[in-house]
Amino acid sequence: MNGLMMQQPLLISSLLMHAERHHGAQEVVSRRVEGDIHCITYRELAARSRRMAKALAALGVQSGQRVATLAWNGYRHMELYYAVSGSGAVLHTLNPRLHPDHVVYIADHAEDQVLFFDMTFLPLVEAVAGRVKTIKTFVAMTDRAHMPKESKIPNLLCFEDLVDANNDTFEWPTFDENLASSLCYTSGTTGNPKGVLYSHRSTVLHTFAIALPDALNVSARDTILPVVPMFHVNAWGLPYAACMMGAKLVFPGAGLDGKSLYELFEAEKVTISAGVPTVWQGLLAYVEANGLKFSTMRRTVIGGSACPPAMMKAFEQGYDVNVLHAWGMTEMSPVGTAAVIKGKHLAMSQDDRMAVQNTQGRAVYGVDMKIVGENGESLSWDGKQSGELLVRGPWVINEYFKGEGGSPLVDGWFPTGDVATIDADGYMHITDRSKDVIKSGGEWIGSIDLENIAMANPKVAMAACIAAKHTKWDERPLLIVVKKPNVELTREELLAFFEGRIAKWWTPDDVVFVDAIPLGATGKMLKNRLREQYGDQLLKQG
Amino acid sequence: MNGLMMQQPLLISSLLMHAERHHGAQEVVSRRVEGDIHCITYRELAARSRRMAKALAALGVQSGQRVATLAWNGYRHMELYYAVSGSGAVLHTLNPRLHPDHVVYIADHAEDQVLFFDMTFLPLVEAVAGRVKTIKTFVAMTDRAHMPKESKIPNLLCFEDLVDANNDTFEWPTFDENLASSLCYTSGTTGNPKGVLYSHRSTVLHTFAIALPDALNVSARDTILPVVPMFHVNAWGLPYAACMMGAKLVFPGAGLDGKSLYELFEAEKVTISAGVPTVWQGLLAYVEANGLKFSTMRRTVIGGSACPPAMMKAFEQGYDVNVLHAWGMTEMSPVGTAAVIKGKHLAMSQDDRMAVQNTQGRAVYGVDMKIVGENGESLSWDGKQSGELLVRGPWVINEYFKGEGGSPLVDGWFPTGDVATIDADGYMHITDRSKDVIKSGGEWIGSIDLENIAMANPKVAMAACIAAKHTKWDERPLLIVVKKPNVELTREELLAFFEGRIAKWWTPDDVVFVDAIPLGATGKMLKNRLREQYGDQLLKQG
Repeated sequence: MNGLMMQQPLLISSLLMHAERHHGAQEVVSRRVEGDIHCITYRELAARSRRMAKALAALGVQSGQRVATLAWNGYRHMELYYAVSGSGAVLHTLNPRLHPDHVVYIADHAEDQVLFFDMTFLPLVEAVAGRVKTIKTFVAMTDRAHMPKESKIPNLLCFEDLVDANNDTFEWPTFDENLASSLCYTSGTTGNPKGVLYSHRSTVLHTFAIALPDALNVSARDTILPVVPMFHVNAWGLPYAACMMGAKLVFPGAGLDGKSLYELFEAEKVTISAGVPTVWQGLLAYVEANGLKFSTMRRTVIGGSACPPAMMKAFEQGYDVNVLHAWGMTEMSPVGTAAVIKGKHLAMSQDDRMAVQNTQGRAVYGVDMKIVGENGESLSWDGKQSGELLVRGPWVINEYFKGEGGSPLVDGWFPTGDVATIDADGYMHITDRSKDVIKSGGEWIGSIDLENIAMANPKVAMAACIAAKHTKWDERPLLIVVKKPNVELTREELLAFFEGRIAKWWTPDDVVFVDAIPLGATGKMLKNRLREQYGDQLLKQG
Repeated sequence: MNGLMMQQPLLISSLLMHAERHHGAQEVVSRRVEGDIHCITYRELAARSRRMAKALAALGVQSGQRVATLAWNGYRHMELYYAVSGSGAVLHTLNPRLHPDHVVYIADHAEDQVLFFDMTFLPLVEAVAGRVKTIKTFVAMTDRAHMPKESKIPNLLCFEDLVDANNDTFEWPTFDENLASSLCYTSGTTGNPKGVLYSHRSTVLHTFAIALPDALNVSARDTILPVVPMFHVNAWGLPYAACMMGAKLVFPGAGLDGKSLYELFEAEKVTISAGVPTVWQGLLAYVEANGLKFSTMRRTVIGGSACPPAMMKAFEQGYDVNVLHAWGMTEMSPVGTAAVIKGKHLAMSQDDRMAVQNTQGRAVYGVDMKIVGENGESLSWDGKQSGELLVRGPWVINEYFKGEGGSPLVDGWFPTGDVATIDADGYMHITDRSKDVIKSGGEWIGSIDLENIAMANPKVAMAACIAAKHTKWDERPLLIVVKKPNVELTREELLAFFEGRIAKWWTPDDVVFVDAIPLGATGKMLKNRLREQYGDQLLKQG
């Protein structure tokens, strides 16, 4: 027997309609590629999204077809989020930091029909325009005055022309909530990129989950600046959550340096920000060097890769900014866990609380986790046993786009590729990527813990720890380090820094100082490259 | 083209599983009918719920069948919430304040198979046991030691015996999220009660919505005491939201007087409470009379009927407790709106902010509202035009149980029976029930505004304003008032109190002082009875 409540599909368009009706005067502020600071209300943004939805229909975009973007965080990008998905097509956010060959591969694989791009990426688009197979229409995300005088791109259209050519009397269509809404490719460090195809249902449910008090905690009194790019797992869902809650949004465009971000935080009274650790390094360095404080920012969400404890300490103790450590994956929409304290932690000292906040956190409702041993057996949640982490839930991937790579699931669970512990309170702590784990004499050593210790040394700018082959122990940890500018640091001094901070046998066998550690398109360290280069380092030493 | 995320149904059992796994040590505290204060963890409560689910199966309860309760707020009632719905049956929470004839009518209409009841209600159950047609099994919610020595109820079972007779190796079944989960009858002041049949989907989505920062704002650091009964629209969803977020729950049982509530608030460090205005009157009176303060309570949710502004002021200014004015209906699961301020209100004076908080609030995401004029035309959101309020959304009723009363919808919208304004920021303000509105010379007068003014007079304990027939104006407002004990208050003094507080022509024509105003089973004033009794009062006066 079914319940007798209304059947209303969970559609992305309903998020924008809610913002328009209940928060019509709320602002969306953008630092534009054109150079200025631009402000628009949700009411205007919703009307422009409807105009763009009409324009897409006029361009022949049909339900389920992919519309690609190569764009910074900005209001026009947000309008496409709603215009494309809301009208039943699929928004495909391409990563502009990828090599042109990869952009061509991904656009072809996705069979993108239209490509919208910020003027910053004109050279990239010119490089790929003659090579991509399915893109019929190119649209520059700017106004007539800023269109390129001449371009190699045939029939280049102008975003504002499309908006101007249509009125806003468009009704968002109603359809099955399981329809595809958006597509992101994973930045796989090996193999071809694979697409994750979200649905309207998975997106709306994920939006509910991340807006909750013990996740990103978003309200109509917040001003959110997503530094995390809209081409990286939909900026962790913030353009959706902001509409659900009526929060003000501030988009940084291309200005991701410490100075630009700090000035925008202060000018727009930002209360919540979100991004990967590398971005915060630049911001903290700028604030520190200039003796500044944050006037309104009270919380920063750090994810994408683990937040070094030293960075959390700087934010929490130096600047009174609460750090919300969150963990997820492209395959999880992306949020899985958030390191928010419980009632029993309220009475703890700040240091003890930070130890809790330094974990990857506890699962938001909807996400189910387990850790398994080498034979697939479930391990207990005691904070000690570590095993491969698997997840499931209504916003977790079932299979990759076009079935690429076969079913990724194991007995209905998605293997994350992370190795983790979970404690009795449900706090999950990632000790390694399963492919990065160091197997020394049959025991596992977590490379991330070693990297965090190295990063806590004030002379270290960046550190990677890899498994180096070893004649006796099979593998031993090797530390690859970038020193801060103008400091002296020896191998011996750094290794001595580990004493008392970790079991003696976990201490790295050696240190290699380098000028830079290679980073992937989303800012993650490419440790497989380091392994190729330095994996035999300890063998050479005999 | 569908998205490629996991298909997992939204089931009520998943809320309890989340609480068990991630908040297993969190407490649920109950003041029991047996007289003591009882404490259990989510881990234990989940295990007992599984045992009870097995017991239900052993009693022959099948998917979709109704299992009724007559019970206070307590952990055993909560175990039934999950055991019954989680195993695929339908939880039917009967209102023990109803007349036995009504209980029999509703139990027969629902075709209840089993009835669980608190010992308080043994006399009521004995009065109906021989009359109800479908209930085969009666279970007293207590342990063996507290079972009645003799009872007129044949084969009376004992709750703790059922728990003890089963182990907890039960797996919650997976089924379609649209299956019915629970059933509540509306306390219609006219006509037969009608059943609202919730689904797992509607319940889980409603749970997400009410836990959000701009609704009830529930976190794992909160301790929630729901005064609103679990037999009244599932205690507004709090037993579900507490599990979703891992909050501590405190159940007051039968102790709803000011002293019992206050002592429980303090002993258990309650941070959030929720209930109807009449309960808070008793609490405030007790706190005031004894010169007490609230040590931990920071927010109280007031709904069910409008919160008198004087009560809000007492909580906010006298006791530093934030009042969250919320509005909903049994037909809405129940929450539709919450009067939470926006960013722009933060800089306002407390008085101005309270004017915003005194509205019924803005819609939570998922609920769509409109107000219409007499011909069904949409009225604008200007805070001035008032019309009948209609709603829709995934936790709004589609039809009543067994199709009772035909389709309640108008063009896909549910008419709430309330008359309201909505302002440009989306704040909805109920001026009347459509059947209570006073039509004076073709103009509408809102009875609730007049009641609120009367209630602001320190000598008034309770006030109802009704439409009395009038020879010249068709209808005019008549005020029915209960004075506070031991005060003097005249008709003239009270009418003078309206001067300057409302348009002169809205001033009531007369005042009738009474000893008590009749209340319905959920504590609402029965204004239709007052109209029967006093509707001709002004005609008599000539």
